[in-house]
Amino acid sequence: MSSPAGLRPTSMTKTYTGASMSLDGYISGPDESGFDLLFDWYNNGDVVIETAREDLTMRCSPQSAAYFREVMDTAGAFVVGRHLFDITNGWEGRHPIDIPVVVVTHEPPTDWQPKHRDHRFEFVTEGVEAAVARARVLAGDKAVVVNGGQMARQALEAGLIDELWVDLVPVLLGGGRPLFDHVKGPVTLDGPLSVVEGDRVTHLRYTVRR
Amino acid sequence: MSSPAGLRPTSMTKTYTGASMSLDGYISGPDESGFDLLFDWYNNGDVVIETAREDLTMRCSPQSAAYFREVMDTAGAFVVGRHLFDITNGWEGRHPIDIPVVVVTHEPPTDWQPKHRDHRFEFVTEGVEAAVARARVLAGDKAVVVNGGQMARQALEAGLIDELWVDLVPVLLGGGRPLFDHVKGPVTLDGPLSVVEGDRVTHLRYTVRR
Repeated sequence: MSSPAGLRPTSMTKTYTGASMSLDGYISGPDESGFDLLFDWYNNGDVVIETAREDLTMRCSPQSAAYFREVMDTAGAFVVGRHLFDITNGWEGRHPIDIPVVVVTHEPPTDWQPKHRDHRFEFVTEGVEAAVARARVLAGDKAVVVNGGQMARQALEAGLIDELWVDLVPVLLGGGRPLFDHVKGPVTLDGPLSVVEGDRVTHLRYTVRR
Repeated sequence: MSSPAGLRPTSMTKTYTGASMSLDGYISGPDESGFDLLFDWYNNGDVVIETAREDLTMRCSPQSAAYFREVMDTAGAFVVGRHLFDITNGWEGRHPIDIPVVVVTHEPPTDWQPKHRDHRFEFVTEGVEAAVARARVLAGDKAVVVNGGQMARQALEAGLIDELWVDLVPVLLGGGRPLFDHVKGPVTLDGPLSVVEGDRVTHLRYTVRR
């Protein structure tokens, strides 16, 4: 769980990862199913949360809205994998939380034509540690958020993750994509630091013990 | 999630299942590892809980002790699989919670010589539904508790489980035996009905939606 010397910056910028996860540990069900169940809490309440995307407005319970606003206020830059970039077409150049996005890829796209041309996306080819280091610069004194199961696992195994934010959803999906696909364990956590009960979700924050 | 007509008794006896589970969904780590981490909460506090076994005394946090006493008071009979029976040698004839135990097996043991000969163990060869039906009789107005990943999955898929009691432990094991090994999903739950924060465990109760 340690990273090569010299790669960790000395700033206090924290690095988080998290996801909506079923009680049996999946962030998507078999054949990319189950998203309606995992993200029900995005839209099962009355509190409107506008995002940077006109086509995406959330309607949460008051508890989940407060939690999600904290996520939005905390996050300074994202690190995502190429898979997530590709299936969203790079969010058309504007992530719903409008902060810089660092994409880890072996080969940056040459033909990406996002709708939003004034995007703040960067591509890093030297792996997740280099991507997190770059994201820390972009995030300033805010947090780096690593998204996507494979990136999260790699960052965790490289000792780069300070906290896990898990939105635990009361469903068993029975298969699919795990949040941490066979991470080299055991990884001891501390917490939960906080437990927020929304409607059809329990928001849990843990720290990673080093 | 429905069972054949006629097998469900009309009593109000509830059927629960549950386990100590890592945040990534495992009830044991790779090669039967991780039990020290999963069951840390059994012995990390000051409140003494005597069990029916002289060799097994728990020392829990006050929160977990209150929760565990509720489990003990609620449970009227267990249903376990042959694997769990074999690795414990049938708890030597006396389960730590001293209530009747129904063992699901293809072939009852002929050479079992438990230390406690006045045991209340029974063997059922007609599968989990018959075992749960028998356990309901033995439990009276208390609950039937189905233990072990494979039994829990089979009982859940047969529509026999009313509640899940999950002791969520802040550790990632990265592999091993899942609580519900590829249950036929999705299974929608409701809750958590209750959230009890112990020391190195969060006790969560969910109902199974039918």
